[in-house]
Amino acid sequence: MTFEKPKKKKIPQMTITRLAQYLNCLSLLPTEQYEEISSKELASKIELKPTQVRQDFHHFGGFGQAGYRYKVNDLIIGLERILGLDQQQKLIIVGMGHLGQALASYKNFEPLGLNLVALFDVNPKLIGLSLRDVPIKDIDDLPAIVAKHNVTIAAITTPTSAAQNTANMLVAAGIKGIWNFSPVNLTTPPDVIVQNEHLSVGLMTLSYRLKTLNKQNDGEQE
Amino acid sequence: MTFEKPKKKKIPQMTITRLAQYLNCLSLLPTEQYEEISSKELASKIELKPTQVRQDFHHFGGFGQAGYRYKVNDLIIGLERILGLDQQQKLIIVGMGHLGQALASYKNFEPLGLNLVALFDVNPKLIGLSLRDVPIKDIDDLPAIVAKHNVTIAAITTPTSAAQNTANMLVAAGIKGIWNFSPVNLTTPPDVIVQNEHLSVGLMTLSYRLKTLNKQNDGEQE
Repeated sequence: MTFEKPKKKKIPQMTITRLAQYLNCLSLLPTEQYEEISSKELASKIELKPTQVRQDFHHFGGFGQAGYRYKVNDLIIGLERILGLDQQQKLIIVGMGHLGQALASYKNFEPLGLNLVALFDVNPKLIGLSLRDVPIKDIDDLPAIVAKHNVTIAAITTPTSAAQNTANMLVAAGIKGIWNFSPVNLTTPPDVIVQNEHLSVGLMTLSYRLKTLNKQNDGEQE
Repeated sequence: MTFEKPKKKKIPQMTITRLAQYLNCLSLLPTEQYEEISSKELASKIELKPTQVRQDFHHFGGFGQAGYRYKVNDLIIGLERILGLDQQQKLIIVGMGHLGQALASYKNFEPLGLNLVALFDVNPKLIGLSLRDVPIKDIDDLPAIVAKHNVTIAAITTPTSAAQNTANMLVAAGIKGIWNFSPVNLTTPPDVIVQNEHLSVGLMTLSYRLKTLNKQNDGEQE
């Protein structure tokens, strides 16, 4: 099977998220157990419909018949190519509280084509320290470091009250991709992409699914 | 405008996620600025198509015409009702490293209808302490506390290597909803719902969108 570049110019946001979910799920499979996988098995692992998986794969020139067993490695390579993970990008994290420190310890940046070059905070007690060999720098040094290393992505893990000011600073420094962990709708210019990690979205989804499950179990009718 | 209970029995997972995104976005709007909002404005804030927003609202008995300005408060109340946020649920967090501590400090559990009753760890130095008045308990006390408080949701913020064992313990204790922050495909019985917060999915999506933006700016053609 070969994956082709998509025919349509713009792939919808939801499709990209699903492709990333497929790749994430596949790369976490124990390889000895899963040399091959069907769309049904993959779909069940991320709670989507098999037809959705096949439709997405078909979109990119994958086979897409029901019952076909894809080679997991081929799928991974194909999805990595589509998502462009072979092209390296530079990343920084701003805000070294608990969340920032947890994020800085994340082991999967390199496999995703991301190079974590620096961490930033305003706290003089943290500035000068390192986390996993990545230095914590003074926020005032941010523009120079972004320019020097050609950083394109910045994660915001500051307190909520500092998030918009941080975003303004990042935009002024030339950052084009903001990975936002603050529960704030950031205001940014149209050429800056904001990816929100809003915990409440996942939590509301889980809470809803659990209530629906309970209703089904209770045999209630709407 | 009134929101009705959905006609279809099962709402697709992706729709629920979008409804949660709408509610999250709306509840973060500055109220003085946004008494009303159009589907176009809302769609642009979460980078979806206005037709998608109208279609979702229509699904639940919302008006759904282009150009119509929805009252933000009505939307919030309607979405909260659909997502069942008025029904309280109990939550625990297992793993008090940086991520667990960041999560325990999250201020939005109560508005989401969630009551954080206890935190758990294996580290004797942490057990007995409190975070925002929520006690850190010994993991061995988990089954008793889950039973006593009728806890339904547990967040896993343990190291990756401990995630599956933690999930097994939670399932044995009767937990039906797992909010999983470990980069692991957990194996659980079919009646347990797992909501994954896999950082790599958001990061891959952002990275892809950024590369696509760069290509468009460079005027490259596929």
